Amino acid sequence: MGGDFAPYAVVEGALDAINKTSKPLKLILVGDETAIRTELGGRESDSIEILHTDEVVTMEDKGSKVLKSKPNSSLVRGIKLVKEGKVDGFISAGHTGAIMSTTLLSLGRIPGVRRPALAAYFPTEGRGKVFCDVGANPDAKPEHLVQFALMASHYYDHVEGFAAPKIGLINIGGEPSKGSELYVETYKLLSEMPNFVGNIEGRHLLTSEADVLVCDGFVGNTLLKFAESWITFFTGEIKEKIEEKLSYRIGAGLMKPIFEDLKNRFDYEEHGGTPLLGVNGISIVCHGSSGPRSIMNSIFLAQKCIENNLIEDTQKSLAIHFGH
Amino acid sequence: MGGDFAPYAVVEGALDAINKTSKPLKLILVGDETAIRTELGGRESDSIEILHTDEVVTMEDKGSKVLKSKPNSSLVRGIKLVKEGKVDGFISAGHTGAIMSTTLLSLGRIPGVRRPALAAYFPTEGRGKVFCDVGANPDAKPEHLVQFALMASHYYDHVEGFAAPKIGLINIGGEPSKGSELYVETYKLLSEMPNFVGNIEGRHLLTSEADVLVCDGFVGNTLLKFAESWITFFTGEIKEKIEEKLSYRIGAGLMKPIFEDLKNRFDYEEHGGTPLLGVNGISIVCHGSSGPRSIMNSIFLAQKCIENNLIEDTQKSLAIHFGH
Repeated sequence: MGGDFAPYAVVEGALDAINKTSKPLKLILVGDETAIRTELGGRESDSIEILHTDEVVTMEDKGSKVLKSKPNSSLVRGIKLVKEGKVDGFISAGHTGAIMSTTLLSLGRIPGVRRPALAAYFPTEGRGKVFCDVGANPDAKPEHLVQFALMASHYYDHVEGFAAPKIGLINIGGEPSKGSELYVETYKLLSEMPNFVGNIEGRHLLTSEADVLVCDGFVGNTLLKFAESWITFFTGEIKEKIEEKLSYRIGAGLMKPIFEDLKNRFDYEEHGGTPLLGVNGISIVCHGSSGPRSIMNSIFLAQKCIENNLIEDTQKSLAIHFGH
Repeated sequence: MGGDFAPYAVVEGALDAINKTSKPLKLILVGDETAIRTELGGRESDSIEILHTDEVVTMEDKGSKVLKSKPNSSLVRGIKLVKEGKVDGFISAGHTGAIMSTTLLSLGRIPGVRRPALAAYFPTEGRGKVFCDVGANPDAKPEHLVQFALMASHYYDHVEGFAAPKIGLINIGGEPSKGSELYVETYKLLSEMPNFVGNIEGRHLLTSEADVLVCDGFVGNTLLKFAESWITFFTGEIKEKIEEKLSYRIGAGLMKPIFEDLKNRFDYEEHGGTPLLGVNGISIVCHGSSGPRSIMNSIFLAQKCIENNLIEDTQKSLAIHFGH
């Protein structure tokens, strides 16, 4: 029931995932049964089950209160299914704060984790980057950022399929002495990690050798949202201009495949949602305006995390690195 | 002597400014006299004077040490001319840290200013935005950010010519409770300012009603550099694709005026440099890779600041607002 296009986007995304995957997949759609059945319109499947709930979390709800105030919401019941071991992962395009809070309170943290963090994939030339944290921790400490680096590296490795990803620290200059106190201290701690490649300035975020880009949740969230808006902004500027002249419209027609390729590559729908790393289970936050494609890709993302034992491997690695 | 293309860019920019301005303008070029005269190639003018210096600040110099270690550098001598009242403003494309440090140490702060801050103009649809701080204060306090808001508003008013600009606080959500401690506290203080329009999320930075966007220097610097790199990144992606097919090349040819218009509008060279606000004099930091156009526009920017009494008006306003 979460997100701007629920239940339509969720139901269609679920059906697409079932049709396209070659692996065993069972989905439980959690929400208003009548609305879901209407959306399914007879396209029932053995792979889909419905769990009826009658409460809905709205953007007016305070995220941290939802677990208690709306226990029969699709969001809370869905996360509880993970806790109860009835499903292997949870996906929602609903209230981000409520998903984060309820996930943390219900599933708890992987032993040794100080703070869970959101890890967002960002497409670039080549194999793409993971930014972490992108909003769970607007205030963070150096020891948190080091754990974000480790958790996001495992995520990159397990989901993108590249072992030993390189870690960069987002900063305002290359030298170790650059940045705020938080970043100067974090640099020192990260220097002990073998895959750390140093500070990465804003201008090099998309082109540096770093696969994993570490920052606090304030910086990451601001950058990510800003980047998303750039694409829309530029597309809008170009579209407006095109209308001015016939020759522009012809030119745009000829260049259409280029623009579509760019649009597809930089579309968040193509990669799926953002997992909350460090919690003891798979919980993926999708963009509020997710369409079916984003939901389908988030399901595939969850499949990869589960199949490749992301949680177990992260736990083992934390134990080795931080001695838990 | 500062910047990637000195003295060429500085000399050409200075000549262009003299040729294009309709106002009285006298420029002192500070640096190696032989190099400057060679660059001038006989184009001497009554409006240009040369002050010979024989030291050069390099990127290896520590910014805060330059005032003492390189007293005869173009950077230090140029700023001293402001201090001595021999010129009304200073412009350089050199070492940003050295310019900031030397300016602060030589000119001092406007009475009542806690921390000087860099204010960068960002072009958007409509009248553009000023981001402040974009790098002078990676660590800042709420009371600093409130002063940045006030100083940047005066700058916007005096240079862009729009009175009572609207002030927004960069944040990760709209509600007053959002963000790190720094931003939650800053929101409270800004709420007392009449032109404050609230928190602005990353996705709305370019399209919100706010003219002045306030943040700490870490966030501002990262955002600004990231934004600059986006333009280069996208242009590069499109250019690469265009080569693949004749129809793309024809389309690109037809659309060329649109791309050029976008390039011009989002080119930092078009607006000139970034002033250090809060210091007791005009000191403008230009992009290291500034060409003649950026230098010329920085000279015009300095002219506006001087003519419109930016320093005096900021001082009066601070006295009223903060009781100095």
